[in-house]
Amino acid sequence: MSEYEGDLRSSSMELKHDREWSYEIDRIRDKIDEHNADRVGLQFPQGLKRKSTGVAEDLKQRTEDVTFLISGQPCYGACDIDTDLFRFTDLLVHFGHSPMQESPKIVYVPVFSNVDVEPIMRKSLDELDSTEPVCLVTTAQHMNKFDEMKEILSQNEYNVQTRRGSERLTNEGQVLGCNYASADVEADQVLYVGGGEFHPMGLAMSHPEKKVVIADPVNNNVKIADPEKFVKQRYAVIHNAMDAESFGVIYCTKIGQGRIEKAEDIVRSNENAFLITLDEVTPERLQQFDVDAYVNTGCPRITTDDAGRFSDPMLTPEEYEIVMGEKDMDQLSFDTFHGTWSP
Amino acid sequence: MSEYEGDLRSSSMELKHDREWSYEIDRIRDKIDEHNADRVGLQFPQGLKRKSTGVAEDLKQRTEDVTFLISGQPCYGACDIDTDLFRFTDLLVHFGHSPMQESPKIVYVPVFSNVDVEPIMRKSLDELDSTEPVCLVTTAQHMNKFDEMKEILSQNEYNVQTRRGSERLTNEGQVLGCNYASADVEADQVLYVGGGEFHPMGLAMSHPEKKVVIADPVNNNVKIADPEKFVKQRYAVIHNAMDAESFGVIYCTKIGQGRIEKAEDIVRSNENAFLITLDEVTPERLQQFDVDAYVNTGCPRITTDDAGRFSDPMLTPEEYEIVMGEKDMDQLSFDTFHGTWSP
Repeated sequence: MSEYEGDLRSSSMELKHDREWSYEIDRIRDKIDEHNADRVGLQFPQGLKRKSTGVAEDLKQRTEDVTFLISGQPCYGACDIDTDLFRFTDLLVHFGHSPMQESPKIVYVPVFSNVDVEPIMRKSLDELDSTEPVCLVTTAQHMNKFDEMKEILSQNEYNVQTRRGSERLTNEGQVLGCNYASADVEADQVLYVGGGEFHPMGLAMSHPEKKVVIADPVNNNVKIADPEKFVKQRYAVIHNAMDAESFGVIYCTKIGQGRIEKAEDIVRSNENAFLITLDEVTPERLQQFDVDAYVNTGCPRITTDDAGRFSDPMLTPEEYEIVMGEKDMDQLSFDTFHGTWSP
Repeated sequence: MSEYEGDLRSSSMELKHDREWSYEIDRIRDKIDEHNADRVGLQFPQGLKRKSTGVAEDLKQRTEDVTFLISGQPCYGACDIDTDLFRFTDLLVHFGHSPMQESPKIVYVPVFSNVDVEPIMRKSLDELDSTEPVCLVTTAQHMNKFDEMKEILSQNEYNVQTRRGSERLTNEGQVLGCNYASADVEADQVLYVGGGEFHPMGLAMSHPEKKVVIADPVNNNVKIADPEKFVKQRYAVIHNAMDAESFGVIYCTKIGQGRIEKAEDIVRSNENAFLITLDEVTPERLQQFDVDAYVNTGCPRITTDDAGRFSDPMLTPEEYEIVMGEKDMDQLSFDTFHGTWSP
């Protein structure tokens, strides 16, 4: 991980929960020099945008005659490169996510958490069976501590199974909201180290045969994932869509969120299905259209996490097949996303 | 105007206020054939999006093996081409606005109102001085009746002055929310035929020396524009921005709404100004940033019409100069937009 280890001295800023982040100002400055860049784009995920002007200020102080342009577009992942800003600048710095696909014009600054993972690792051992293998996974922001997590498990005599599950994932043991292939190992128990409710829920849904232990190092609590409520929610959405006569099939134009083949397959086979293209998929945008239900071929998390915000049922492509009678309800699985994009 | 006159028989649909629109289905089908297009994009302004699936259905019935993709992006003008959809399709049909710039790959379908303008023209004569020249202007959706409007004024012995004010405007006598150059004539009175409050307000602000008569053919009422309330609102925003220590300078990435030189000039001359790039400029997106005030170099209507929705003051580039003491308050004029874009 040394490639992404930042210089905490020059640029770390305190956030809530005592997390500190490194913006790797010096590495960025070197890349700007290397590219002789005049216009540099800075893209931050939503949670770090408040820090963007401070980072731009730090960079301005260390460079000359460079214009920094901060992306104001919402950004939810490494799949979500601001392509307008990319085209308009000599170099784009993408903060907060690990590379989904390398490009000579993009500098990825993953912005690792420096929260101590040891306490939560010790706490999680109570929920794990030490006589059985355990799969270890985490999110991009804790990847810098992955070796340490593994080491703690090994020291406690665990047989730790890890893998880099897909080309969409940068690292061994990494999971994304849309991809849990790093847990495709033999072990029947998975330790997920990270925050949020949605990642471990996707993990549990993608691997229903495994016990998923959630170790949240920021809020310092350990839980077992229970996807039952989630599954019931999906059944309800599918049920509501059964009466739909017309469908809006969403194709997302964000660089790493498009599945055009899936979208075109559906509209070709159903004369009451209409292809709708969007970058941000929001309830306000969709309420403009006169259709009864939606099928989202873009980011799976929008379909599931935001289900309650949409006034019409929104289905995954597989759920659409269930609605159309092409699949049985009990074949329902979690919608995941594979591959990256053409360079 | 014959080029844009549609075939009302095949595709007209009733909307409220007895307006009917033609979507020129047959002309679009001919263009699809001509381009041998496999993927065709359909882009509608917000008010017509509900009709988009109906239009796609009509087009599907008249074509074979063509995939229609409907833009789900908000669209507010001919300046607002969905460039993602443009790049992804063989032909883009842009409904509801007249061409700001022609492109072989774009079919513009202006979607004219067929409301009768004669009653409102007769009513507006009460507010006009027949011994003085009168300037006549209207919006894209009533351009199909422009010759008739002119004719009614001439029959009543008026000296009618019209011009095509700017390359940004498609037609003689046309105004846009961001461009009122078609009223740059000698006449001291202007007759504006059209709906809405914002167009005539911009017109009155851009030409404070003229009397602006608003003739709304849809709601059938005639008013005199009074920009005083509007001017007071702008003074209040400028006043609120006087304490700002940091500025977010917005560069809009929409194809016809970008003024990068203005934006870069500001950030070069003020070390506390930061360039932020966006397509949709919304309060939700801007509230992520830690700055005290904004300068919007994108669509002027966002600055003025949506002023109350933004929690921080939003200035036009000229208002920013007033805040910085580079211009006097009484030099305040309405922000307008000229030119189009590089093909």
